[in-house]
Amino acid sequence: MSAPSPRTQQALRQRNLSLALRAVAAGGPLSRAAVAARIGMTRAGVAAVVDELLRAGLLVELGPGRPGTVGRPGSALALNDRGPCGLGAEIGVDHLAVCAVDLSGRVRARVAADAANRHHPPGPVLARLAGLIEEVVAEVRGEGLTPTGLTVAVPGLIARDESTVVRAPNLGWQGVDLGPLLPAAPPARVGNEANLGALAEQRLEGTAAEPPVTGEDGEPGTVDQPGTAEQPATALPAGDGGSPAPGDRRSPGPGRNFLFVSAEIGIGAAVVMDGELLRGAHGFAGELGHVPVRPQGRPCACGGRGCLEQYAGEEAVLRASGIDPARARAEHPGPGGRIAMLAARAAEGDALVRTALREAGGALGIALAGAVNLLDPETVVLGGALAGLGPWVVPAVERELGRRLADPARTVRLTVSALGAEGPLLGAALSEVDAVMEAPGAVAAG
Amino acid sequence: MSAPSPRTQQALRQRNLSLALRAVAAGGPLSRAAVAARIGMTRAGVAAVVDELLRAGLLVELGPGRPGTVGRPGSALALNDRGPCGLGAEIGVDHLAVCAVDLSGRVRARVAADAANRHHPPGPVLARLAGLIEEVVAEVRGEGLTPTGLTVAVPGLIARDESTVVRAPNLGWQGVDLGPLLPAAPPARVGNEANLGALAEQRLEGTAAEPPVTGEDGEPGTVDQPGTAEQPATALPAGDGGSPAPGDRRSPGPGRNFLFVSAEIGIGAAVVMDGELLRGAHGFAGELGHVPVRPQGRPCACGGRGCLEQYAGEEAVLRASGIDPARARAEHPGPGGRIAMLAARAAEGDALVRTALREAGGALGIALAGAVNLLDPETVVLGGALAGLGPWVVPAVERELGRRLADPARTVRLTVSALGAEGPLLGAALSEVDAVMEAPGAVAAG
Repeated sequence: MSAPSPRTQQALRQRNLSLALRAVAAGGPLSRAAVAARIGMTRAGVAAVVDELLRAGLLVELGPGRPGTVGRPGSALALNDRGPCGLGAEIGVDHLAVCAVDLSGRVRARVAADAANRHHPPGPVLARLAGLIEEVVAEVRGEGLTPTGLTVAVPGLIARDESTVVRAPNLGWQGVDLGPLLPAAPPARVGNEANLGALAEQRLEGTAAEPPVTGEDGEPGTVDQPGTAEQPATALPAGDGGSPAPGDRRSPGPGRNFLFVSAEIGIGAAVVMDGELLRGAHGFAGELGHVPVRPQGRPCACGGRGCLEQYAGEEAVLRASGIDPARARAEHPGPGGRIAMLAARAAEGDALVRTALREAGGALGIALAGAVNLLDPETVVLGGALAGLGPWVVPAVERELGRRLADPARTVRLTVSALGAEGPLLGAALSEVDAVMEAPGAVAAG
Repeated sequence: MSAPSPRTQQALRQRNLSLALRAVAAGGPLSRAAVAARIGMTRAGVAAVVDELLRAGLLVELGPGRPGTVGRPGSALALNDRGPCGLGAEIGVDHLAVCAVDLSGRVRARVAADAANRHHPPGPVLARLAGLIEEVVAEVRGEGLTPTGLTVAVPGLIARDESTVVRAPNLGWQGVDLGPLLPAAPPARVGNEANLGALAEQRLEGTAAEPPVTGEDGEPGTVDQPGTAEQPATALPAGDGGSPAPGDRRSPGPGRNFLFVSAEIGIGAAVVMDGELLRGAHGFAGELGHVPVRPQGRPCACGGRGCLEQYAGEEAVLRASGIDPARARAEHPGPGGRIAMLAARAAEGDALVRTALREAGGALGIALAGAVNLLDPETVVLGGALAGLGPWVVPAVERELGRRLADPARTVRLTVSALGAEGPLLGAALSEVDAVMEAPGAVAAG
């Protein structure tokens, strides 16, 4: 057998740095010996890797003789909470938001602003976003953190260059390269908001899986959880195949095969299979909003007929509730404005709103039944607006899925995202932390 | 950095054996030097690997000084056509078939028999299949080939154990472990027929990609192509994004992201993304036949309503053509019996049959529009019965896709499988050859 090439050696070094960093992220603080045991390297090998991670400012030493350590006292290693951080931004139809998360996934700064972005040209929108980014960068730099990258979540089709918005119908953008409009540093990329929301769900599982199952009030992990409280997981159909074990009160996480539905103005989705985001040939996978649910139904802006978005998108729900969408946007602006209004009316017992939400849930259930038959996910996670409207939407989704997946061999778990509408923003920032975790050598070199 | 562990070394050896074997498979006959150049190993390293492959009977030497070789004459290496071979079997609703392919993917033996398997118990069906397997094994052994494994294609949901048929509605089987009913040797596994059909499509591309593009009559590759002639690829919508280059008369292959639709009595599909078959959480992905296309339509045996199978499955098409399915089965038995009858009537201009096929194509187009929005494949390949009925089904599929994927950013290529109904059987055998290519060390050890 031939010896590893320099390129292979470089890849091995990167891999070892990544393994050691992830070991500390998952189980730290850890001694060098504990890292060595977890990743199956010799202690001498780990010592060299850890030195490099310390020099790069990715890890810190908590000092020797830390109380609570078992066996020979060793200097405990932890993620540096004054080291690199990831920036996430979100361009919504009626809001902008920016946040920063540190290596442990903790949100360290967050700003948001209402913004009427619908059919506004990208230039001014991005200029305003740049101001928010500056605010966040100043704040985290004040805490000693260094932004390593920025990901911008956009509700639309993003080209494989991770820079061009091919089409964002609700913003009215088409074929726009956002690259030149974004700050020069740190390096920026653009992603689909549903895909980034799915990434946040995966990370939530990763962190929630760490603490031992203790019963009453398990920590939901290190990710901040703003917004809606988590709703219980539901096994569908009534079978018990996919239910969490009794006594386990934590979210079981979406698993390695799941569908994440992100509904705001439009409806998008992300498909994660075998732990990997499915992108498709052009990067456009996940357009659940244009799955036909009433094939001979209402014409859609996409050119099709009877697309899900025409029955479960915000505008459709408002109209079915007897509410003028333009007026509703004026009276209830900002992220979640109309959602909160619809939720309040439904809670008050408004029959028209309740029927509209039930119908939207039914349409969503039909589209999801097709998707589940095609993809066989373990879990369907409802995120975004659907999290806020869960109590009125979810039963109808469940009913359609229960009817259409009657075969007992087919079980799927339906859950509502614990992250509410915050998922895509958080996922954008976490994707930058993931990039550091994947290639710590890049930070070390820079 | 630590030295590679014995386990890593073992994996490296396996990988090098596999790389060398695949290099000869793709471009052979090749000299040792040519193999070394293709896989980026030293000549000394390759010599050791090749020796092992020769000893295992996977490669043969064609002898030195072979005419037509360029440069220093070296002994040319080729796949052994009297070495290991893969067995494939197919349990259809009304037929059984078995074939053997050698390492180059060439069919070396094939037997088939009409069989009324619908709602027949697995015992007698498998006993009859065992007889056919024996015939094929005797035939290939007579040619000096050694079967290394058997894969059985079944139209149904197969458990992750690759042995249990969870549900095959058209056979009437449910929760049946076929393992004990299959021959003791060679090692056998059970797979979903659409998944195996997709594998054959991928292999077809692999082989077709090898010869240079010469224009008029490019070889379709080493895989036998029984049945239907290939139909031209169609770019959808009218855009030119996905069309093959002018002058390229070969099939461009399905690409790394494609949907393979396998229609016989029922309708299944396989989803290949980034070159990998998507299996889903339970291994049940690809149930296109139960995607709702008329959500409030006909009840389906699955418990749902308006499933594609109710509008485009064989029984639905026969009924819509004014033909009694039971009588048609009696009068036109065997694989392709009813398909040939329907094709003949459509060709004669039977308006009822033509309308039925057009309606089936429309329903399929609706289901595929949803699947394309969700998965963003490069290609949709219509296989099985759809290949034989292409001229009457495809235009309706195209029309629906064209309408519903009107966004010019969304292009998908619709093709008809060159393998016709033979895909799953061929894919079953090829999957065994793939297993040898992936882990030649197992054959070398055994």
